[in-house]
Amino acid sequence: MERTLILDCNDKVGEIVTIYGWIQTRRDHGKILFLDVLDRTGLIQVVVSQDTHLRGVSKVTSSAHLGGEISPQDVVCIIGKVNKRPTNLVNKNIPTGEIEISAESIEILSKASELPFDMGGPTLNLELPTLLDWRTLSLRHPKIKAIFKVQEALLSSFRQVCQKLGCTEVVVPTIAASSTEGGAEVFRIEYFEHKAFLTQSPQLYKQMLVPVFERVFTITKAYRAEPSVTTRHLAEVTQMDCEFGFTSFDELMDIYESIAISMVEHVQNSSKLYLKEYGAEEIVYNKIPRLTLREAQEVILKEYGRDNKKEKDLTPQDEQDLCKWAKKKHNSDFITVTHFPTAAKPFYTMPDPKNSEYSLSYDLLFKGIEILSGSQRINDYQQLVESIKSHGMDPKDFEMYLMAFKYGMPPEGGFSFGLERMIMQILGLANIREAALFPRDMERVDIRLNVNIKNKK
Amino acid sequence: MERTLILDCNDKVGEIVTIYGWIQTRRDHGKILFLDVLDRTGLIQVVVSQDTHLRGVSKVTSSAHLGGEISPQDVVCIIGKVNKRPTNLVNKNIPTGEIEISAESIEILSKASELPFDMGGPTLNLELPTLLDWRTLSLRHPKIKAIFKVQEALLSSFRQVCQKLGCTEVVVPTIAASSTEGGAEVFRIEYFEHKAFLTQSPQLYKQMLVPVFERVFTITKAYRAEPSVTTRHLAEVTQMDCEFGFTSFDELMDIYESIAISMVEHVQNSSKLYLKEYGAEEIVYNKIPRLTLREAQEVILKEYGRDNKKEKDLTPQDEQDLCKWAKKKHNSDFITVTHFPTAAKPFYTMPDPKNSEYSLSYDLLFKGIEILSGSQRINDYQQLVESIKSHGMDPKDFEMYLMAFKYGMPPEGGFSFGLERMIMQILGLANIREAALFPRDMERVDIRLNVNIKNKK
Repeated sequence: MERTLILDCNDKVGEIVTIYGWIQTRRDHGKILFLDVLDRTGLIQVVVSQDTHLRGVSKVTSSAHLGGEISPQDVVCIIGKVNKRPTNLVNKNIPTGEIEISAESIEILSKASELPFDMGGPTLNLELPTLLDWRTLSLRHPKIKAIFKVQEALLSSFRQVCQKLGCTEVVVPTIAASSTEGGAEVFRIEYFEHKAFLTQSPQLYKQMLVPVFERVFTITKAYRAEPSVTTRHLAEVTQMDCEFGFTSFDELMDIYESIAISMVEHVQNSSKLYLKEYGAEEIVYNKIPRLTLREAQEVILKEYGRDNKKEKDLTPQDEQDLCKWAKKKHNSDFITVTHFPTAAKPFYTMPDPKNSEYSLSYDLLFKGIEILSGSQRINDYQQLVESIKSHGMDPKDFEMYLMAFKYGMPPEGGFSFGLERMIMQILGLANIREAALFPRDMERVDIRLNVNIKNKK
Repeated sequence: MERTLILDCNDKVGEIVTIYGWIQTRRDHGKILFLDVLDRTGLIQVVVSQDTHLRGVSKVTSSAHLGGEISPQDVVCIIGKVNKRPTNLVNKNIPTGEIEISAESIEILSKASELPFDMGGPTLNLELPTLLDWRTLSLRHPKIKAIFKVQEALLSSFRQVCQKLGCTEVVVPTIAASSTEGGAEVFRIEYFEHKAFLTQSPQLYKQMLVPVFERVFTITKAYRAEPSVTTRHLAEVTQMDCEFGFTSFDELMDIYESIAISMVEHVQNSSKLYLKEYGAEEIVYNKIPRLTLREAQEVILKEYGRDNKKEKDLTPQDEQDLCKWAKKKHNSDFITVTHFPTAAKPFYTMPDPKNSEYSLSYDLLFKGIEILSGSQRINDYQQLVESIKSHGMDPKDFEMYLMAFKYGMPPEGGFSFGLERMIMQILGLANIREAALFPRDMERVDIRLNVNIKNKK
């Protein structure tokens, strides 16, 4: 008999259906056994009685027998009748809460081994290392899975907004001949007989594509060989990048703020149930306040008593406090910080013409953490060559990149959203590792690596 | 004055507009100079006369003067009046062919260096190595750019179809602790103090996600360190992957054939102008013929006189001939070939239960080349462990992967489309390098590497 998807059972009350899925939980109630069965569309309650057959094993079986046979994560095919639940047993929290299936027969298609931990509760109460050691299993828990439904919503809404803005989607390489921005934190590849690197960002390539498409976006991987472990960094991250030609510093901020708000709106509308599972507060986004770094540090001093006014960047604590301040003062979960010192920024960042000590750069903070970074770029060829040199790099290593500027480059700029960080902040996760299906860091590539962090430089 | 996008000039006849863009061509006609100006929305003809001002350089300038100032790829801001063209000068090949701009003033925002080759003709007549040596410039040519508008259409239609099929979009890692499928053709990374590899495909990860989402898709990079140079292989490619739970061999073929047809339909509708530029023939896709490898080799013997019946795979010539045959005999630009020898396939491929010498595998050929490959997978844990061992690999290296099978895995399978190969075949490009914005191979990472191919093993 043809498969019925679990969500579609709502339209099949009184009919016999065949469903396929995974056993989520079982609850023994004496002569009756309840199973929660899950497929890609949702979850349904299945009632197993003494009349239920267990196909392939025995013709008729008691629920006691079934209780011994069927266990969580088994893959099953169940034939049964869709019934309305009695009014007092309706579960309003799930889309199939008004129905249940009375099982005629059950077949186990794939038997799961005994689980190392209970998967049936509303939350997986595991420490992060355990959660990740068992990643392919822990991901099956509905609350963990929800994280990646939010991820899907973010990816899809980012693309939609970019398309509306007239951006062309591009595919950029992740193998490069030189490091993107200088610095040592780059992974080296043995590239045939040569050395090559994993790109630290799609930065140079998206810039090179401005004279081709004027506006581009790409969702791609970025790699950072940072030999440290924090709750906010991964060795392999997913970036959502844009680059715009014929634009100005102010317009760039308008654009990324509107993209951020669109994404958050979309997620709040499309992922209500998932956000609820995480107890995520509604995100507020009125007019997003914009401060220069120095103004922000002034706020930090005044409101939180820390004098960081000589620092070239915000500290993690500053980011948290500024977001608290923005929420309190401007009723906004976002805040933009601009004008980081030019010397602390990559070579392609445009110095502020009014004061070249500071740059036309910006970060977007969201609920306590930076989720976006970008700038107006230097678009003059000569100025760019000089900037590369003054950063201690060789323009010859940027031959293909510089070519884009040699043959007509408009004023341009862009920005980059960190996907995992956005997910982490939207759901209030404690660690960015929870926001990646298979996180990479110096301690782990699926399985734990044998690393002694204290010995690392 | 606010910018008007070039395409929107169609609605501004009689008005003064400000446009921004790149000079595509200039044609001197004595006292008048014609410029073709391009922005992200299209191209427009601009008429420069003796009354046109050149802002920032001189107040009033003659066209002769302008002729010296303005050259192709210059970035300009032009203010002028939108006029209807005389009927006999209408250009029906472009969306703005009924109008032109009479320039009041022109400002050069970024001056291009003299071009190394003519960018003004309908085609860039460059050898491939030159085309790639000048990649950031050659990409600006409208006909080259068109390749990547087709790419965009393919990416977007693949996602749309997958979403309709109930697939969840997932992000999979590209750094792995062991090679995906064995074999030596893998790039090694220095991963902190460890060795790691760039994934040869998202294969293992998409399978691991079937028990989580049941149906998944991902568009991701795959890396092959193949020390050879062909017209059909790159070191870094983009794959469009799907994996489906609760499915059968026949259903998998139905699914990928329908995805392929949807993508091609979408591109033919959305990218008509681009396909026309390449003189691409309309793609025909009636019922797609399916042959086993041995049947296909029978056709090769009968129709083309080559006896390859003992080969474990099709040769490139076989692929071309089979496609010719499918077009002639079945009026289809696609043909599916199934049942490759089990021994020649990766460990996760399901042997045919009727004859385990052959496997439940398939390739989709399109206009002469394989663009998709996949199979029904082994979903039984013990069988999979045995298969890993019999392929000379250690199940311990697949701990996280095997976990997915240990805890309930339904019958499942999937496939992978090669993005660059699809683009190449749709447009009839001679070399896959033309189908990647920044192609990677053993000879080139943007700039040419110093490689002596004859000395390679």
